[in-house]
Amino acid sequence: MPSRVGPHQRRRRLVVLKGQQAGAGVVWLVGAGPGDPELLTLKALRLLKTADVVVHDRLTPKPILDLAGPSARLIDVGKRKSHHTLPQEDINQLLIALAREGLTVVRLKGGDPFLFGRGGEELAELRAAGIEAHVVPGVTAALAAAADAGAALTHRGLAQAVTFVTGHAAKGGEPDLDWASLARPNQTVVVYMGVSTAATIAGRLIAAGREASTPAMVVENASLPDERRIVATLGGLGAAAEGIEGPALLIIGEVAALASAQPVAELVRHAGEARS
Amino acid sequence: MPSRVGPHQRRRRLVVLKGQQAGAGVVWLVGAGPGDPELLTLKALRLLKTADVVVHDRLTPKPILDLAGPSARLIDVGKRKSHHTLPQEDINQLLIALAREGLTVVRLKGGDPFLFGRGGEELAELRAAGIEAHVVPGVTAALAAAADAGAALTHRGLAQAVTFVTGHAAKGGEPDLDWASLARPNQTVVVYMGVSTAATIAGRLIAAGREASTPAMVVENASLPDERRIVATLGGLGAAAEGIEGPALLIIGEVAALASAQPVAELVRHAGEARS
Repeated sequence: MPSRVGPHQRRRRLVVLKGQQAGAGVVWLVGAGPGDPELLTLKALRLLKTADVVVHDRLTPKPILDLAGPSARLIDVGKRKSHHTLPQEDINQLLIALAREGLTVVRLKGGDPFLFGRGGEELAELRAAGIEAHVVPGVTAALAAAADAGAALTHRGLAQAVTFVTGHAAKGGEPDLDWASLARPNQTVVVYMGVSTAATIAGRLIAAGREASTPAMVVENASLPDERRIVATLGGLGAAAEGIEGPALLIIGEVAALASAQPVAELVRHAGEARS
Repeated sequence: MPSRVGPHQRRRRLVVLKGQQAGAGVVWLVGAGPGDPELLTLKALRLLKTADVVVHDRLTPKPILDLAGPSARLIDVGKRKSHHTLPQEDINQLLIALAREGLTVVRLKGGDPFLFGRGGEELAELRAAGIEAHVVPGVTAALAAAADAGAALTHRGLAQAVTFVTGHAAKGGEPDLDWASLARPNQTVVVYMGVSTAATIAGRLIAAGREASTPAMVVENASLPDERRIVATLGGLGAAAEGIEGPALLIIGEVAALASAQPVAELVRHAGEARS
């Protein structure tokens, strides 16, 4: 039997909004896609062009920011690993404050806001503060990486499921993942933010039973002109991830065997890096 | 150590292409997104406007097809369940034949071509035939459903992973899924094409240890004006899926508790359906 009450039921939110002054602002949590401006949605573009303020991360490509209207104010709240430009709680408060000024705010999130983007936390804070907020989905980086590689994330006979996890480890340890489940064959595992823990992840998966010969790849800067794709095996994934500095993800599974290799020059360059 | 050879290595493909006559066609496998035309990417729109032929499925919304250029030929190869308008192999051969006529072909796929879209199979056939082919990622339906519901697929403390599976069962049986893995808490499970098997899937997950009280929802026609979202629990998922006829997906996991409920009229209507 469906429930009639949820923590953010529409009826309740409407009542809260009625309590705001006229002309209250609104926050759009907008997926910016993987980086190629052409992979923005039409809706994201429309919102960018009409926003009063665009709140973005450090890695948002400039060609995307250039699509904002000429009078829009751009605010960079980007985070670097181990160097938070602005803590999440401050970002939340910033969004709330901007909306309370009556502004139309676009909060640009790389990829999709609801897949490892902490968009859920931002939305919860906005709603708790009585701010009108909406979410616009985006093309997540893994789909762009797969499209460019020519390797479908699901493929008959190779993968009937795909799991997205984060390789980010709290407190500098190792990621807390369900290794036994992820080690089963005939599924694709996509790891976001997994470059620095790639060797650990590969080792854990192999220890849990996934074959070291399982195809795998590292994709850096998916969809951008400097996209780099290194096709390897699970056993070689740690080496393949060495030297990667841009945003990157790992794609592990039989489907990675379908991936086009990078131009040979790239591979030679990387193999040299991995050996050195 | 990265491999330098893959089954579709770029070097080999270039050699094949050199053997084609000048003016050979090209096939773009393009994600059409979840249905809302505004959730097309800018790249999908550009390709639609310049295509000679658009090959689409039955469920592609008309407002999206209307974006094709005025001289474009539209071909519907849509499939109905248990009533294949055109078998997959015939679609593959159609795409190859169109490209060999020198045409620019857009093959529109709902959502993303590489997530349960059989795009991988189409790409493999095209490449085997020496046809130039590219893939354009799209917004997959689950991300649109999550965005509209206000329920992030991953969320700190609720879900650190999300798995996408298909509920489609070969030969009319039950889907062949890894129930033990999917039954673990604190992860989100998204089931595409799972409406007709929702009760079976829920039963299997509960038998494998997932709590019957786990939040879950059914989302029909995500992103479209007639989107319908039914927030339930895993134990009530079978009943919630009754009466759903449009394209729909299941989202199972703690994050579904964050979903906004539908307007009460919708819920009352559905509850009546589920009881009858």
